[in-house]
Amino acid sequence: MPIISFRGLNMPESPIRKLAPYARRAKDKGIKVYHLNIGQPDIKSPQAAIQALKNIDLDIFEYAPSEGILEYRKTLATYYNSLSIGLKDLSYENFLISNGGSESLSIAISCICDEGDEIIVPEPFYANYYSFAEALGVKIVPVVSTIDDGFSLPKIKKFEELITPRTKAILITNPSNPTGYLYSKEELQTLADIVVKNNIFLISDEVYREYVYDGFKHYSVLEFQELKDNAIVIDSESKRYSLCGIRCGFMVSRNQEFLQMALKFAQARLSPPLIGQLIANAAHSEPQKYIDDVRNEYQQRRDLLVQLLREIPGVKCPVPRGAFYCTIELPIDDAEHFCLWLLKDFQYEGGTVMLAPAQGFYSDHELGKNQVRMAYVINQEDLKSAIHIIKKGLEVYNSNQ
Amino acid sequence: MPIISFRGLNMPESPIRKLAPYARRAKDKGIKVYHLNIGQPDIKSPQAAIQALKNIDLDIFEYAPSEGILEYRKTLATYYNSLSIGLKDLSYENFLISNGGSESLSIAISCICDEGDEIIVPEPFYANYYSFAEALGVKIVPVVSTIDDGFSLPKIKKFEELITPRTKAILITNPSNPTGYLYSKEELQTLADIVVKNNIFLISDEVYREYVYDGFKHYSVLEFQELKDNAIVIDSESKRYSLCGIRCGFMVSRNQEFLQMALKFAQARLSPPLIGQLIANAAHSEPQKYIDDVRNEYQQRRDLLVQLLREIPGVKCPVPRGAFYCTIELPIDDAEHFCLWLLKDFQYEGGTVMLAPAQGFYSDHELGKNQVRMAYVINQEDLKSAIHIIKKGLEVYNSNQ
Repeated sequence: MPIISFRGLNMPESPIRKLAPYARRAKDKGIKVYHLNIGQPDIKSPQAAIQALKNIDLDIFEYAPSEGILEYRKTLATYYNSLSIGLKDLSYENFLISNGGSESLSIAISCICDEGDEIIVPEPFYANYYSFAEALGVKIVPVVSTIDDGFSLPKIKKFEELITPRTKAILITNPSNPTGYLYSKEELQTLADIVVKNNIFLISDEVYREYVYDGFKHYSVLEFQELKDNAIVIDSESKRYSLCGIRCGFMVSRNQEFLQMALKFAQARLSPPLIGQLIANAAHSEPQKYIDDVRNEYQQRRDLLVQLLREIPGVKCPVPRGAFYCTIELPIDDAEHFCLWLLKDFQYEGGTVMLAPAQGFYSDHELGKNQVRMAYVINQEDLKSAIHIIKKGLEVYNSNQ
Repeated sequence: MPIISFRGLNMPESPIRKLAPYARRAKDKGIKVYHLNIGQPDIKSPQAAIQALKNIDLDIFEYAPSEGILEYRKTLATYYNSLSIGLKDLSYENFLISNGGSESLSIAISCICDEGDEIIVPEPFYANYYSFAEALGVKIVPVVSTIDDGFSLPKIKKFEELITPRTKAILITNPSNPTGYLYSKEELQTLADIVVKNNIFLISDEVYREYVYDGFKHYSVLEFQELKDNAIVIDSESKRYSLCGIRCGFMVSRNQEFLQMALKFAQARLSPPLIGQLIANAAHSEPQKYIDDVRNEYQQRRDLLVQLLREIPGVKCPVPRGAFYCTIELPIDDAEHFCLWLLKDFQYEGGTVMLAPAQGFYSDHELGKNQVRMAYVINQEDLKSAIHIIKKGLEVYNSNQ
């Protein structure tokens, strides 16, 4: 057997993946499994997108340009310039299309970091950030945010303690996966000050931008004029338009030197998906009502979820202001064990629940050991049933211990 | 301006990209530019694929499984087991789907190599191999094949001289881009012996497998039983079915430890394109006549190309046995300069030609300095006109020097 790489050996296996076979087995036994574990929305894709697919009339499915289809990049510039955040100066030249947001982040890290370089990330963070960095030999340096502070940004001093000559960027998700936390303008200003002072990049993953609740406003790092060279936004159509499968993401920046370098990585893999771009481009012509309706639906689910979870004794649940996730604390010692138990050994009225243990979202797996992430991507009736199962499950689990 | 990475600075810019603005300018002047520079076939995609797109009836475009859609992986196993090469044992579990063949190769290198590790590649080689390796800090070690030997595999001794403790794999393209060279069974046996002896991987990019001419047979590294753990095949639907834009590639291996590691990288980017897989899966139901017709068309073009090129004084043109490329020697000193001149300063009867300077396919850019790669992806009438322009161009260019 030839030798395989440390790079590969070090790639994490997500706790969700470990649970997946048990979910399958539960289903095979006829148990209904409520999936609160993944970020696959149950929301229908926009009609404009579905219609665009039907309208495709090509006899050769050719490569798209490496940087993305011009028309689609223009649509994205128009979309960004029409956001309420007051951007007006973006053109198609600020956009580079990728295979999902994931590839944009991988390319961005490649452009910014050499092996051994460091990126500071508030944790808990999206678990795959660790994988992208590990694949490129880059170190994720976590700065801990806590459930007791509602996952707000740690003090500026905490960041400054972590900055070394190898620090090349701060990476945030806003609003956050896994916590739903929405950064305030003041928090972003703090980050802007740090990155300018230290001459590093600020990468902001804003794929959940449209899903912000209670009338709160989403601020983008692109609004800060002093970040002209420092700000990189990662975005994707997956969550905005429930188009996860078309693999259409992109990066946005005003730093042309950075974008030209990103283009070289994009050229190496030739082309982002042609059909995905045609669909995504059309999705942006869907009336605003689509986004508003989806936002309303998510807000109602979030309200329901928070209300029901807070009725369960011992559960700690901050109110997430954005995205469709929340990270909560359960009255248990080991969330991974509890999540496994729910799938393996528990059912209530023929159903059980699959949750994501939060350990996977912390670099120190001891942190968040009694936390789980829930994605409210199922309808309200099912959500009610799922929370009820969790409540009953906790009662049985804790009386068994 | 924040500091960007050496990784990025070292990414090569392809000579074709440098020529692209001049091609655009020529077109703007009303000159017809014959594109022999890129591997975008003019061949129509199969009807089964086009029909499959029209038949898609989804209301949510969901993530596909990270490893690819089961049905499509089964189709691929059936396809491989029905190849004339005598494979029978492959199942869907030997296949992992990716964003084009490019991503499969990047993932394979990630699984095999840490930073500083080495991969031996016969050159000239597909220029993006260098980019994939550079992005991951991996060193491409070239072993030179020459136009005078028809680009056949260098002697085994040449390989053995290059193997170090950091050598993790040999990477070939069979048939080759950029030379069209088809490896013989004996050559593959030689490589098999080397990789087994040295306990390294043999990665074979076989995306042009179906396009082999003159009744010659394509041999796959999967046929060598002793390579059970060592062989990795990179494949793609792009060239086989003229489906470049759907971004559907895959890797094939019997080494499950390797594939499980590859899956971790695939999970990090969540999903290969959903729609691309649905289209690709259907393409495999297209009657064999499609491939046979395309093969005949390419063979006729190749025959025409070789015949016409050999009529030009000073042109050296081996007969490529596969793919749709040939790398030829021109009676000039600097192919990059000649290619630029064709676009900038020459036209014949309102037309000119865009060629790929072969320097980009050699790690030592002095090698191949008087060579160009031609892709016969235009129809025979245009091909005739294009070669005639090259002939006239060489006359004028050489009389001007």
